[in-house]
Amino acid sequence: MPDPVLLVLDAEPSPRLGRLTGRVEVRYADASSLAGLLPAADVLLVWDGVSDAVREAWPGPGARPRWVHTASAGVDRLLCPELVASDTVLTTARGVFERPVAEYVAGLVLAFATDLPGTLESQRQRRRHDREGQGVAGSRAVVVGAGPIGREITRLLHGLGVTVALVGRTARRTIHGVADLDRLAARADWVIAAVPLTDSTRGMFDTRFFGLLQPSARFIGAGRVATVVEADLVDALNRRWLAGAALSTFQDEPPDTGSPLWDTPGLVLTPHLGGDTVGWRDRLGERFVAMFERWSRGQPLPNVVDKALGYVPSSDLAEDTAPNTDSPS
Amino acid sequence: MPDPVLLVLDAEPSPRLGRLTGRVEVRYADASSLAGLLPAADVLLVWDGVSDAVREAWPGPGARPRWVHTASAGVDRLLCPELVASDTVLTTARGVFERPVAEYVAGLVLAFATDLPGTLESQRQRRRHDREGQGVAGSRAVVVGAGPIGREITRLLHGLGVTVALVGRTARRTIHGVADLDRLAARADWVIAAVPLTDSTRGMFDTRFFGLLQPSARFIGAGRVATVVEADLVDALNRRWLAGAALSTFQDEPPDTGSPLWDTPGLVLTPHLGGDTVGWRDRLGERFVAMFERWSRGQPLPNVVDKALGYVPSSDLAEDTAPNTDSPS
Repeated sequence: MPDPVLLVLDAEPSPRLGRLTGRVEVRYADASSLAGLLPAADVLLVWDGVSDAVREAWPGPGARPRWVHTASAGVDRLLCPELVASDTVLTTARGVFERPVAEYVAGLVLAFATDLPGTLESQRQRRRHDREGQGVAGSRAVVVGAGPIGREITRLLHGLGVTVALVGRTARRTIHGVADLDRLAARADWVIAAVPLTDSTRGMFDTRFFGLLQPSARFIGAGRVATVVEADLVDALNRRWLAGAALSTFQDEPPDTGSPLWDTPGLVLTPHLGGDTVGWRDRLGERFVAMFERWSRGQPLPNVVDKALGYVPSSDLAEDTAPNTDSPS
Repeated sequence: MPDPVLLVLDAEPSPRLGRLTGRVEVRYADASSLAGLLPAADVLLVWDGVSDAVREAWPGPGARPRWVHTASAGVDRLLCPELVASDTVLTTARGVFERPVAEYVAGLVLAFATDLPGTLESQRQRRRHDREGQGVAGSRAVVVGAGPIGREITRLLHGLGVTVALVGRTARRTIHGVADLDRLAARADWVIAAVPLTDSTRGMFDTRFFGLLQPSARFIGAGRVATVVEADLVDALNRRWLAGAALSTFQDEPPDTGSPLWDTPGLVLTPHLGGDTVGWRDRLGERFVAMFERWSRGQPLPNVVDKALGYVPSSDLAEDTAPNTDSPS
């Protein structure tokens, strides 16, 4: 039996894949060659989670990989109706990005609280910055999205003394349902978006939503880009409906030089800082090698996407959320 | 018996002092009038902890207040030999600044780890910032100074998953002695200075010390200004002996426009962000009113400075330091 063909999309992945030497035939594809190479591939490893190449190459008849693994947390850029309808198993890099994203969010909360952006700007102008900071302990956050990333953010903010309400699709145990979101957002100091992109979350952070917030609130985007209506956020910040915001992914990567995003008051752009900590390629590579071992032995894979839902369902996650002092009533 | 005279140095303090109306006679002093007003005062409330006015006004013969309270954590700017030798009780605002300073330090650790300063500078130039962040969980910190502020910093960093070694004057239980400092600093990712200013800490963070650090290390000054030799820190940063630093107090307040501090590579200036969170004046005022009640009833005061040591000794503190995973061996 010939070795299975592992097709790698975009860039040289981690050296960790060297462990598969002699057991797979590795081929490389880019956006233009992908459609032609797909029919002969057993496994597709998508290294760049924000590429649209898979969705564009997939449609049409023909053989397809039996397994697609994406080195990212979200799969919205991959899913096309034909892939959803197929028997192909789709898995994600769950477990790699949760902690870095949570640290990124916690860092932004503390940086906003002490007005670090304004402080650095004053330093650049050789001026003393005299604004008082806010305390973080005792402030209120609402984390939208109860997947692994939202849960890790909740845990870390809770450890800083923040009262956190975690909002999921449906209310369960320590998690609020989305019906509570408006009420919780209206009294929050921090609103953190960590939702997957689905039909029901697309554009959910819009003018209507930003209009609910306190003028002192800050919004931090830690989820998929298309859940936030960028133009509405820029408009709300210009009107001072909220005090600040941070985005790490953008509709255009990077935004045009002329984009209003760059200098909207209170807006911090942190391109992909969310998950890309030193060593992430290695951690992703290690994960993939471990998953490949299971796949080649015919064992079930972890982190399988429910393609109808559009994400890895969390029903199989340990219920290990931090004690939540703002529990649903 | 006439009401006791409360002399307030510098600025209108918190409205909370209104609670003492009818029970004290409040007088106000500034640096130039202080010496003349001291002899008639029973209590001196020093609102600006970085003023040298008390040290300059105190020497010489004459009656003095029986109690001096400073609305700051350190007392080095107050102590002169005559005050040390006197029967006057000196108290500090311990309990007000610990948490804000710890949040400030934790925020800087996370901001350095994700290179938030570089990210903001890239945004200003409308450029995508492509540097990967570091993880904070599992990194190593050494906190120098085992007083209430150093302990609170230790607690908060520990909650972020940082392995923290706390260094005090002498080794005890979970606290390392200063003899361990060089060894611990040499392998630390984060060095946080939170020591009071005494004869043995003056200038302790100098060229010799910075030469011990890893090139990837960051130094955060959260203690008294004169414990850090500013010129040595600037020099070490210019030589890339360490990757970054933050200072919140300076020899000159604010530094001259021409000071090299403003644009030393990797140096973040956060003037007094350390403790000044919204509402701090009120919290200080509340504390002082509660202490005044005790004083007027002849009860012992909390937070009394050992004037020979130069700080409030921590032997009377609850041993409530967070579990320390890097315990002295």
